[in-house]
Amino acid sequence: MDKEAVVLSSGGLDSTTCLALAIQDVGAENVTSVSVNYGQKHNKELECAEKIAEYYDVDHYVIDLSSVFGSSDCSLLKHSTEDIPEGSYEEQQKDSESGVVSTYVPFRNGVMLSAVASYAMSLYPDCDIDIYLGNHADDAAGNAYPDCSKTFSLLMNDAIFEGTGHRVRMVFPFVSKNKSDIVALGSLLKVPYELTWSCYNGRDLACGKCGTCIDRIEAFKQNKLIDPIEYEIEDPCKELR
Amino acid sequence: MDKEAVVLSSGGLDSTTCLALAIQDVGAENVTSVSVNYGQKHNKELECAEKIAEYYDVDHYVIDLSSVFGSSDCSLLKHSTEDIPEGSYEEQQKDSESGVVSTYVPFRNGVMLSAVASYAMSLYPDCDIDIYLGNHADDAAGNAYPDCSKTFSLLMNDAIFEGTGHRVRMVFPFVSKNKSDIVALGSLLKVPYELTWSCYNGRDLACGKCGTCIDRIEAFKQNKLIDPIEYEIEDPCKELR
Repeated sequence: MDKEAVVLSSGGLDSTTCLALAIQDVGAENVTSVSVNYGQKHNKELECAEKIAEYYDVDHYVIDLSSVFGSSDCSLLKHSTEDIPEGSYEEQQKDSESGVVSTYVPFRNGVMLSAVASYAMSLYPDCDIDIYLGNHADDAAGNAYPDCSKTFSLLMNDAIFEGTGHRVRMVFPFVSKNKSDIVALGSLLKVPYELTWSCYNGRDLACGKCGTCIDRIEAFKQNKLIDPIEYEIEDPCKELR
Repeated sequence: MDKEAVVLSSGGLDSTTCLALAIQDVGAENVTSVSVNYGQKHNKELECAEKIAEYYDVDHYVIDLSSVFGSSDCSLLKHSTEDIPEGSYEEQQKDSESGVVSTYVPFRNGVMLSAVASYAMSLYPDCDIDIYLGNHADDAAGNAYPDCSKTFSLLMNDAIFEGTGHRVRMVFPFVSKNKSDIVALGSLLKVPYELTWSCYNGRDLACGKCGTCIDRIEAFKQNKLIDPIEYEIEDPCKELR
């Protein structure tokens, strides 16, 4: 049976590196990119995911899951009254009893993986399917996002493999890596990071202050690499230029 | 922490019995019914689920997952070119190499359980949640629906429990029972079977010939009980009237 790799792409740094890795693994002709509309406050993620798929010349689909997350008050979502918090995840966790942060969309990875498993089975009825997700150890740290952990990833793989009649498996290449490792790998794979968008806000430039901007800037710094995108804050890479 | 029971309701016989059981377990005031629009060929399922929720005086919500299943050629779906097959699942399986039948919506239970887990966490942010699903052994037999099996159910529970930060568990009360056992229990619980709809077709009367009609009729027969709905075929319960 033929095999197809389907990559969950958010247009961000992690999933774009994951896409590059999948292409290296099986060739662009056997790779498909899928993004999810979950009711994001802004469309930048989806626009970036589309451009990245074009860059790599792979098919790109969007699944609408906004109805699932329509009652969540997660600060990332369009209808939420919560502001997107500034500061690192670690700082935000100090205010949270469980460790879960306000940017946690309830069980988002579980819903997206299940939905993409189903969608891919319909798109490729005659193929076995590997679904790639770029979740990594930093996001799971201290239970910030319980659906990013290694334990969750292994359990979800078992459930999906069984429930799809052994046709779909999960691939989590970064589950034991941190964002700095991902940038190091992506740099070798020549990932077009100028096309990616990580910031939780959807303004013209990345804010440089939200949890994911802070992590991204730090990951480039640790690799002594220049982050090619522009920020609202003072250029974090100015010492390297 | 308070507990809420959330029942996946299709308006059919199994899930309505499951709803009655949840109400018996924790009281109607702690039970919510959720249905899924997955792009069904007809709306009878959703209409029945709504009426059943009214009957039991529980809240009822509908999640739209039609985008997920939009590419499936499953014969149950609106856009499919396949006719809904007649005959028992066993007969249909003779024509299928894997055992999976044409009414299998790819990984539907996995997608629905994940989606409802997320949705319920948003609806009840201060509660632990039990999600009830009425899947049973007949549907899993011979791999007809791999996402109905006991193995899948246990694995999916583990994945969801972990990925929701230990807030959501699954309850599968019928996973080792058959449809006849369910009707026997439902009869004790006085389930209003006259409000339920099982038939894969959406005509005025149930066809009596599709896989699920055949199973339903047989389940009532084995219990020597009268099925209160009307069929297009000759009354299958005429000997009992």
